[in-house]
Amino acid sequence: MHTACATMFSVRYHNLTVSSIRVTTASAAYSVTIAPGLLRRLYPRLRKLTPGKTPRLFVVTSPAIWALWHDRFLASFPSNQQPTTLFLPSGESHKRLATVESLAQQLALAGADRDSILLAFGGGIVGDVTGFLAAIYMRGIRYVGLPTTVLAQVDSSLGGKTGVNLLAGKNLIGAFHHPLAVFSDIDLLRTLPAAELRAGLQEAIKSGIIRDPALFRFMEKNADEILGQGASAKTGSDQGGIEHQPSKLVFADAKTMARIVTASVKVKAEVVSQDEKESGLRMVLNFGHTIGHAIEAATHYRKLLHGEAVAWGSIAALHLSLNRSLITPEDFARSANLILRYGPIPPFKVAATPQASAARLVALTSADKKKRSGRRAFVLATGIGRTKVAYDVTDPELLAAAHSMFKTMQQV
Amino acid sequence: MHTACATMFSVRYHNLTVSSIRVTTASAAYSVTIAPGLLRRLYPRLRKLTPGKTPRLFVVTSPAIWALWHDRFLASFPSNQQPTTLFLPSGESHKRLATVESLAQQLALAGADRDSILLAFGGGIVGDVTGFLAAIYMRGIRYVGLPTTVLAQVDSSLGGKTGVNLLAGKNLIGAFHHPLAVFSDIDLLRTLPAAELRAGLQEAIKSGIIRDPALFRFMEKNADEILGQGASAKTGSDQGGIEHQPSKLVFADAKTMARIVTASVKVKAEVVSQDEKESGLRMVLNFGHTIGHAIEAATHYRKLLHGEAVAWGSIAALHLSLNRSLITPEDFARSANLILRYGPIPPFKVAATPQASAARLVALTSADKKKRSGRRAFVLATGIGRTKVAYDVTDPELLAAAHSMFKTMQQV
Repeated sequence: MHTACATMFSVRYHNLTVSSIRVTTASAAYSVTIAPGLLRRLYPRLRKLTPGKTPRLFVVTSPAIWALWHDRFLASFPSNQQPTTLFLPSGESHKRLATVESLAQQLALAGADRDSILLAFGGGIVGDVTGFLAAIYMRGIRYVGLPTTVLAQVDSSLGGKTGVNLLAGKNLIGAFHHPLAVFSDIDLLRTLPAAELRAGLQEAIKSGIIRDPALFRFMEKNADEILGQGASAKTGSDQGGIEHQPSKLVFADAKTMARIVTASVKVKAEVVSQDEKESGLRMVLNFGHTIGHAIEAATHYRKLLHGEAVAWGSIAALHLSLNRSLITPEDFARSANLILRYGPIPPFKVAATPQASAARLVALTSADKKKRSGRRAFVLATGIGRTKVAYDVTDPELLAAAHSMFKTMQQV
Repeated sequence: MHTACATMFSVRYHNLTVSSIRVTTASAAYSVTIAPGLLRRLYPRLRKLTPGKTPRLFVVTSPAIWALWHDRFLASFPSNQQPTTLFLPSGESHKRLATVESLAQQLALAGADRDSILLAFGGGIVGDVTGFLAAIYMRGIRYVGLPTTVLAQVDSSLGGKTGVNLLAGKNLIGAFHHPLAVFSDIDLLRTLPAAELRAGLQEAIKSGIIRDPALFRFMEKNADEILGQGASAKTGSDQGGIEHQPSKLVFADAKTMARIVTASVKVKAEVVSQDEKESGLRMVLNFGHTIGHAIEAATHYRKLLHGEAVAWGSIAALHLSLNRSLITPEDFARSANLILRYGPIPPFKVAATPQASAARLVALTSADKKKRSGRRAFVLATGIGRTKVAYDVTDPELLAAAHSMFKTMQQV
């Protein structure tokens, strides 16, 4: 019997709104706290999680994040309670079992025990690796999420999916292991490269499209304010992972950004609370991801950031929904335009012609389908804030949708 | 709220008694089936676990086990349903994350999906590694235990503890992941080396001492029959792992051995059903293991088999219980004599004198205690079939007990 619940409240604190969203699944319950300036009072917040005890704390972070933020991170810790810091090099190539083993060995040598708590301070890779490390160190210890990217704050830090890659495929090794709590400090996004910020916001747009028309409208209305002057910044990743840098190319005011992150977290928290292990409802979070994953695989995870691939995948899914007359032309246009507005999303090709590129992507979704031994679930939009899951999407339909996506790409 | 249950029934089948013990924990429920000749009908037994579906099956085993038993193992599989076989080299040195990664990569390349089932066909190491592989492949798939040693049949195949070693320590990486079912074919013990068989029986004696006086008496009465002519066989391990061999040096008749395995499994199933994650009752299974683990660490896991180290550790724990007048001299003598009767247990030393050896072992138990951040729980015998857990055992008491153990060693 699953209990399902995602409650939210906001309080004013030092003139800042602090939002707290509760995630309650069959196997865990925890709060996600969202506000600017959270790091300033990090230690007291952590202490509240384990009243009476003083467990040892171990930060797992990337050298780049730590260089920029260690002063702020450590400021609230008493001098005799400084955490031990372990480093995870940036980049997807380090999201492997060898890294987990090295970190576990460091934990053991530093005396980490069953009561110790890991602090995952970084983007999606740091969160995935640290959560998995916590899942398997001494058969499971606790961890706290401290996500530093939009993508991690709105998506990967929630839901309990942790893991690493095999050579044979991404995220093939992992565990469901929920954090003890998540603290999303909006200020951390100030050092995020512009392309990373915009790509992360694509997941927020996805949340709006699948479940939250108010979030969608808010992002429509406030696009200029949110995107600032960063619209022309460099896009794409070179597989080197996210390097934060002390630039402020793109950043909305903290209040606007906090509102977007909070609304997105609420969507994911509601869905995950009702369906922890992706047997039903959780599939809607995969809107844009079927084609998105195919794009990432076809471009060897090098040309596009995850959020950028999902943005193109969402455009394809919208075309498919329109072709089935599930969505009105007006809602189709509003959705596609909002996705493009938060670009530029870098164009790409995976074959000589758009037709051949589309065929290549569809072939890759079939491979994905076969791996999961069964029907291909495809998430379609039926309006802004509404979806349905279809199991009867055919290859010709996918091909037409992918082809339309490439046509859209040529037009922008 | 934990539900706790361990029920058992036995049926006659082809003139053989098939015992089935049900383990029901908060997170899983499964049956342990014990009988000679189980492999002959393995495929139909597996099919019953997943009615309607035909999941892909992957055997993880050691080359030595497979060489001896693959004909019998495969005999019941239809020719179009042959399982894929993956090999784990023998020996503790392969109980590492690198092995898990290699096996996971092989699974992925062979097309294993979320519905696939692993068959852990081997001793404790095969079981621990395969269970952990199942725990983390695609965030968790199912596995079936097919233990081939006494130790694995009576102990390690039950309870859901899976994992691998770090350089920093044994079993520091792992997960709780229960099997879908366990099938213990008593015939497999026929190829077990004599020392392995006797060492495994020490865990059965432990089950008798902590919880089952009838099992204890049965092993007292039938010692000659059970041990056969193998009492003088080579003892000890050279870290090379258990190599089965087609010898029949030591083996009771299958019915007697099945009775011992069944009674031991029942003890462990009852305990684990009531306390899945070692918060209370499960600690009693550690009788003899505090000093036993110290002996294994001090001898670098090379001189003694696990059951042999536990046998000496049990003798020390019995001395401590006697020194506290918790156990009568008669019950002490019966218990110690039964342990020694199932020997020879190889003598060892870890320093120049017995005094120094005892001090070294006690120092190692303290290190163990510190690692678990708290009180040292020590399991004491209060009679045959009865224990209590003490938290106030002092180092001088331990020292005296370890010293008495070395004196016992000199006398036999």
